[in-house]
Amino acid sequence: MTWVELPDGTGFGIDNLPLGVVLGGGRPGIRHAVRIGDSVLDLHGVTGLPVHATRTLDSFLVAGPDAWRDLREQVTEWLTDERHRARVEPHLLPLAAVQALRPIGVADYVDFYSSRAHAENVGRLFRPDGDPLPPNWLHLPIGYHGRAGTVQVSGAPVVRPCGQIGPPGDDGLPPFGPTRRLDLEAELGFVVGAPSEPGERVPVEAFGEHVFGVCLVNDWSARDLQAWEYQPLGPFLGKSFATSMSPWIVPLAALEAARVPPPPRDAALLPYLRDDAAPWGLDVELEVRINGEVVSRPPFRDMYWTAAQQLAHLTVNGAPVLAGELFASGTVSGAAREQWGSLLELTANGTRPLPLADGSTRAFLEDGDTVCITASAPGPHGARIGFGEVTGRVLPAR
Amino acid sequence: MTWVELPDGTGFGIDNLPLGVVLGGGRPGIRHAVRIGDSVLDLHGVTGLPVHATRTLDSFLVAGPDAWRDLREQVTEWLTDERHRARVEPHLLPLAAVQALRPIGVADYVDFYSSRAHAENVGRLFRPDGDPLPPNWLHLPIGYHGRAGTVQVSGAPVVRPCGQIGPPGDDGLPPFGPTRRLDLEAELGFVVGAPSEPGERVPVEAFGEHVFGVCLVNDWSARDLQAWEYQPLGPFLGKSFATSMSPWIVPLAALEAARVPPPPRDAALLPYLRDDAAPWGLDVELEVRINGEVVSRPPFRDMYWTAAQQLAHLTVNGAPVLAGELFASGTVSGAAREQWGSLLELTANGTRPLPLADGSTRAFLEDGDTVCITASAPGPHGARIGFGEVTGRVLPAR
Repeated sequence: MTWVELPDGTGFGIDNLPLGVVLGGGRPGIRHAVRIGDSVLDLHGVTGLPVHATRTLDSFLVAGPDAWRDLREQVTEWLTDERHRARVEPHLLPLAAVQALRPIGVADYVDFYSSRAHAENVGRLFRPDGDPLPPNWLHLPIGYHGRAGTVQVSGAPVVRPCGQIGPPGDDGLPPFGPTRRLDLEAELGFVVGAPSEPGERVPVEAFGEHVFGVCLVNDWSARDLQAWEYQPLGPFLGKSFATSMSPWIVPLAALEAARVPPPPRDAALLPYLRDDAAPWGLDVELEVRINGEVVSRPPFRDMYWTAAQQLAHLTVNGAPVLAGELFASGTVSGAAREQWGSLLELTANGTRPLPLADGSTRAFLEDGDTVCITASAPGPHGARIGFGEVTGRVLPAR
Repeated sequence: MTWVELPDGTGFGIDNLPLGVVLGGGRPGIRHAVRIGDSVLDLHGVTGLPVHATRTLDSFLVAGPDAWRDLREQVTEWLTDERHRARVEPHLLPLAAVQALRPIGVADYVDFYSSRAHAENVGRLFRPDGDPLPPNWLHLPIGYHGRAGTVQVSGAPVVRPCGQIGPPGDDGLPPFGPTRRLDLEAELGFVVGAPSEPGERVPVEAFGEHVFGVCLVNDWSARDLQAWEYQPLGPFLGKSFATSMSPWIVPLAALEAARVPPPPRDAALLPYLRDDAAPWGLDVELEVRINGEVVSRPPFRDMYWTAAQQLAHLTVNGAPVLAGELFASGTVSGAAREQWGSLLELTANGTRPLPLADGSTRAFLEDGDTVCITASAPGPHGARIGFGEVTGRVLPAR
């Protein structure tokens, strides 16, 4: 039991303790912080550690799993033992008084494509006469590199991007302008803390030695730009304008009760992808809201490829991962329609607009729309582990 | 005329003055440096500026074009005016005494696909029955994000990567092992110095206000990994194991005499890609050597899309570029066979091995092979501007 007063039903009890980076609250500089309930613990205040060079968590995460565990145990003790209260409580700042910043440097950003329902939905829309899954899909977690520099923290707006929105018309020029098919993609993101060595493969069993924790990701997508540009080298401007992440990184250590076996695999796996011994399926329930209305509840437990397999694949060619690197799951979609994690799927590529409670409909996102993705997972003793939210409002094209 | 003694035919005369980052030479710390002939000028030594936090050029490049010009003028004065010699000469270190490091942080890494001959060669190999160019190719510079964290400096070896090298066999498992089709790609890389603002498009005319200079790039590629993985989201592990760059960044200011009009365009361009007023074609001649033997001389002047157009495209959706970001041209290939910039093309995907002078042949690279790419361009007064080299030796898979 913590001595901190917690709101009813908080997802940020003593078993969560996510890390972030904050500004404000009457304290100078950028500070590493732990969220507890609707407060944040200023780690520099409570430890006396200097604030310089703490713009991101990377400088802490690079220290590795022993340091992560030590801090977690220390913070747990501070927040549960009344004897620490007098010293620690002055360093608890109201969440509302601080600004949570992008918590990591995003040394690289990789996005996977690991929901089978999502891949099949997309395949049926774009290749109606073929197999909905590409031939490699069941054999490896497909992924690609995205733009690290445009990963932004929740709350930052998303300006509708412009670009070439289709093949040339009669004038020989591709139509150009603001995207007409701005979409969301509900995902989880995995934050690498401890780097791997060049040439070192990270086996699925070593996932927890490198990945610190989990956040929410909205992989904003301009479907018309993407459809025109993506052959043969993959998505580029259709994705690179913005990717939003939630500010509080939930440690893997908080997610032990959420671990579940992944779905049965329909193709035999190469040894480096086998995960029977200690699978990293996660029972995280996402909710996607447009302007406050829930439009989907994607179940992360249905993801075909786990983050441990993604990391094993990412490093099997010897590429090292770096502290503060982010890799995302790909759109999370379940089998049922109300579990699909993108408007592309929910509206059948815009052909069946989604009715909203205010009487309007959405084929894709409109200017002024706010998208908010939240999630929670089972924690110990019946508690829920919250992920907070990743939110962004669509602003008109410039 | 510089008072520095220059080797005959150096590409590093007073009109070049590329920037890099060096370690050693009897001086502590990592230092910004200018190459002149076979010497490097220690900028910290000569200016007295502190060495801390200078691991890359990014901290200088971010200051923008006025600072770049001021430094260039200052260094030119130091190295030409005899009155400065006594003070400056002690800070000239022998090139051989220092280790040139990766000069930039590589905030993001983008690779384009802008040689028409290369794209057509690849199209004919992989889509023999279709149009060799994808339908979008003449309308936009196709590009994708690569792995920033594995961009390495010339001289670093390349360990042959492992991975899934093709579709499943009779056992239902994809074959796994070291790539059998390790390739080189000869490219130029463009180093962003001054960042752009989020939402700001960088017009082709503003190229020189953001891009500081040019280097050589070898975009190592594992063709078997790439062929199996790349649909539908583009290259991933087939490229992410290593990308090599040359250490000396040749300023755009040294390349005025090398500017040429790009080839005629066969499709009308949208306004943001039009470059008639001040095109950035570059008459850079590349040479590709395997184990010392020239196997190709790719002409950069034949590139269909210029780097100015690439940057305009990269930012047209509002994505900002960052200081220390790298974007590469894509494989440089000319029309003639002896001008093709990859073994994929030179050997028709391995079906027509390349004879080497030692009597051996190469379908793709073998362990122990050294690949060296060099280049030069016309400078003022009949001088040549050198780019140095990007070199890497292939080590066996671990």
